Amino acid sequence: MAAKIRVTVWHEHRHEKTSEAVRAVYPDGMHTVLAGALRSAGDMEVRTATQDEPEHGLTDQVLAETDVLTWWGHKAHHEVRDDIVAKVQKKVLAGMGLLVLHSAHYSKIFNNLMGTSCSLKWREANDREILWFTAPGHPIVAGLSDHVVIPREEMYGEHFDVPEPDETVLISSFTGGEVFRSGLVYRRGAGRIFYFRPGHETYPTYYQREIQQIIVNAVRYLAPAVGSAAQTYGRREPIA
Amino acid sequence: MAAKIRVTVWHEHRHEKTSEAVRAVYPDGMHTVLAGALRSAGDMEVRTATQDEPEHGLTDQVLAETDVLTWWGHKAHHEVRDDIVAKVQKKVLAGMGLLVLHSAHYSKIFNNLMGTSCSLKWREANDREILWFTAPGHPIVAGLSDHVVIPREEMYGEHFDVPEPDETVLISSFTGGEVFRSGLVYRRGAGRIFYFRPGHETYPTYYQREIQQIIVNAVRYLAPAVGSAAQTYGRREPIA
Amino acid sequence: MAAKIRVTVWHEHRHEKTSEAVRAVYPDGMHTVLAGALRSAGDMEVRTATQDEPEHGLTDQVLAETDVLTWWGHKAHHEVRDDIVAKVQKKVLAGMGLLVLHSAHYSKIFNNLMGTSCSLKWREANDREILWFTAPGHPIVAGLSDHVVIPREEMYGEHFDVPEPDETVLISSFTGGEVFRSGLVYRRGAGRIFYFRPGHETYPTYYQREIQQIIVNAVRYLAPAVGSAAQTYGRREPIA
Amino acid sequence: MAAKIRVTVWHEHRHEKTSEAVRAVYPDGMHTVLAGALRSAGDMEVRTATQDEPEHGLTDQVLAETDVLTWWGHKAHHEVRDDIVAKVQKKVLAGMGLLVLHSAHYSKIFNNLMGTSCSLKWREANDREILWFTAPGHPIVAGLSDHVVIPREEMYGEHFDVPEPDETVLISSFTGGEVFRSGLVYRRGAGRIFYFRPGHETYPTYYQREIQQIIVNAVRYLAPAVGSAAQTYGRREPIA
Repeated sequence: MAAKIRVTVWHEHRHEKTSEAVRAVYPDGMHTVLAGALRSAGDMEVRTATQDEPEHGLTDQVLAETDVLTWWGHKAHHEVRDDIVAKVQKKVLAGMGLLVLHSAHYSKIFNNLMGTSCSLKWREANDREILWFTAPGHPIVAGLSDHVVIPREEMYGEHFDVPEPDETVLISSFTGGEVFRSGLVYRRGAGRIFYFRPGHETYPTYYQREIQQIIVNAVRYLAPAVGSAAQTYGRREPIA
Repeated sequence: MAAKIRVTVWHEHRHEKTSEAVRAVYPDGMHTVLAGALRSAGDMEVRTATQDEPEHGLTDQVLAETDVLTWWGHKAHHEVRDDIVAKVQKKVLAGMGLLVLHSAHYSKIFNNLMGTSCSLKWREANDREILWFTAPGHPIVAGLSDHVVIPREEMYGEHFDVPEPDETVLISSFTGGEVFRSGLVYRRGAGRIFYFRPGHETYPTYYQREIQQIIVNAVRYLAPAVGSAAQTYGRREPIA
Repeated sequence: MAAKIRVTVWHEHRHEKTSEAVRAVYPDGMHTVLAGALRSAGDMEVRTATQDEPEHGLTDQVLAETDVLTWWGHKAHHEVRDDIVAKVQKKVLAGMGLLVLHSAHYSKIFNNLMGTSCSLKWREANDREILWFTAPGHPIVAGLSDHVVIPREEMYGEHFDVPEPDETVLISSFTGGEVFRSGLVYRRGAGRIFYFRPGHETYPTYYQREIQQIIVNAVRYLAPAVGSAAQTYGRREPIA
Repeated sequence: MAAKIRVTVWHEHRHEKTSEAVRAVYPDGMHTVLAGALRSAGDMEVRTATQDEPEHGLTDQVLAETDVLTWWGHKAHHEVRDDIVAKVQKKVLAGMGLLVLHSAHYSKIFNNLMGTSCSLKWREANDREILWFTAPGHPIVAGLSDHVVIPREEMYGEHFDVPEPDETVLISSFTGGEVFRSGLVYRRGAGRIFYFRPGHETYPTYYQREIQQIIVNAVRYLAPAVGSAAQTYGRREPIA
């Protein structure tokens, strides 16, 4: 890890090109807002990559220079190349952090890392979402009180078909009465993964101060430890 | 374990004696309703024990003949004898199942087994509670669809100060917007513990069919495995 | 689930055809020994399926009639068809139990369900393996004392690149000084998975009484709960 | 948290006073060796406290100024005052880190936080211990390769009667064939706990470079996050 955390904000970047409503919220693309929030934190070097760039913007060099990758996708998951997903998965197992945002619950990279369907219930109806903290003292909620209210969001409801998390940090309620495990930590190989629910493209969620704080905290938490040694696998002799 | 699961329904049994409102809901005591529901299951031998009996009704013989103990208490936790709590704790670690109900989150036995404060937020205001299933296929929700609605209940809200559960089976939402992890499995020693949130004494919750089903399922899940061997501890020689 | 647990013992069945040493241990194939042990338990209906049968013996009908699938493979993992692996994975998430044996740590089905590399250290050198029980009272070790010794086995050593297990039931030591988490429970979707380490094809491990007991216990533990309801996913209206 | 991590090294400090053999290993007390290793790390302010000081050296002020507490005890666990244990437990739940060393598995503070017996098997017979890393990339093993050998140590063997850990970082083997989960992370309330097995008083274990590295790493990992807010509990109004 460099002195600064090297973050790559990956974005599908399709909705903004076809929907006036989404463009109204994110005129320069959602990734520029996320990257801006992370840059403001001061301890990160941030670049962006989007799906329609060559190799989805995720060349070997970009991945080699990435400590934490954030991922937002929705309508074009199936167009993401399997070979690039395999490279990202290998990189996560080797220690790169991965922040999975909102509808990326159905991304190939998250599905492959979880091994489950990652299905859920949903509704687009301007529900109020309240995120409650279930792990006080966790670095991901540092600097915040004990809950966050998002005035209007898409609803996601349980059952969320993912493995039992290593850490459950946030659970949401919605106006319609549903609940959802909204902030989940997984350790896979030498890497850490955080799934963070909010962020539907038609709402200004990623402009909200508390949401930005959680995203900044999460990136810091996902950064690999300094001095981590590679594991050895394969045939070995007994210890003398 | 006997052919039938031997259940002891333990109840504080104080509110019914002093409150007309509670007596209206549970004229013969909450424990008789719980015991009746378990007896109807057909595969259980059920007895009851209450706090004001000698030794709180939990003599060595009663404990020796108990596969699963259910526990409801509220206003008199502090009057439960420490030596009896220690006996129950030892029995759980040796394999006895323990079903902890509602306000027993503050019971000595649960606090000692968790090691945390078990604090929470609360409100008595006729909230509607919806219990969502977060572990489909789990034996504790067998025979039920994917959520249960309780028309009126006391609210319990996160943060619930307990260890990360071994299995999170149910999460509730409340009218006021709160969430709560309402069905939690813990393994401690050779025993299993299930914390189940609903059951405030002024509401007819334990008469509700789905709630009774969850309680019956939970007792079956908590029953010790047949043929479990005792562990050995202490000094030992190397294996030859 | 039928009155009896319906088990399908799946076997690669290649080593026995090409190696005299393996044939000496398992003249009728390893699957016949495993199936025999399970049949002797009395509460199971057991069939076998092997890789070189049409559809690897795993037709839709066979899978529909299977409560628990056991899987042993080694040298031909890459020849297993991806579409059949996908069907098996879906079935596990819907509730079918899966018992993953020894070198099947590198099977496609286990790798896909774990999301990690499942790599490990190994050595074929007649190590003595001791399996220690780390979850007393667990149904998988019912009927056994607190450890099992296998006189000669292949060594597998940590780090074993799998997710943190939901339950760690067994940890092995080997003559060479290595350790390995040898009995691991995972819940994925509505299904349960048990990884069980022993069973190299050149040793008579699956004839050993205690090992057969663990396999029988595991199949019972993996069988789906009676009355499990299917989850619903997708768009939904708010609760009235 | 101050700019530097404020560590209090707590030590029973009895064996050194009565045993020539222990004094030969730790002439100035084990706590001075531990404190020296932590001071050398450069990012910590370290003080020591011992059982025979007034209030066991753990006054309110000392605890208020402690980010991480390390604890070694053995023969005088029962003489530690219950009221001070209660204060330490409350402090851990509020966010203070706790490093539990070797025979402190039977300390009141660890037993109370775990809720289990914390029993184990043991033998003093100069076993060689090998600690294997089961969580590559974990900050607690940063700077080390994939295992550590201690030439001679006391043996601890499974079953270790503790809850399923939140993170299993190290598993040991011993010459006699036993295994033990030697490095375990627990989160309780807002605090983190690390149990670390090695450190019998008659062996020079805490002088070993790799062991000191693990202890330094662990203290850093246990330090509370900057900006953690206190949780609120008790009665609350619904969200408007």
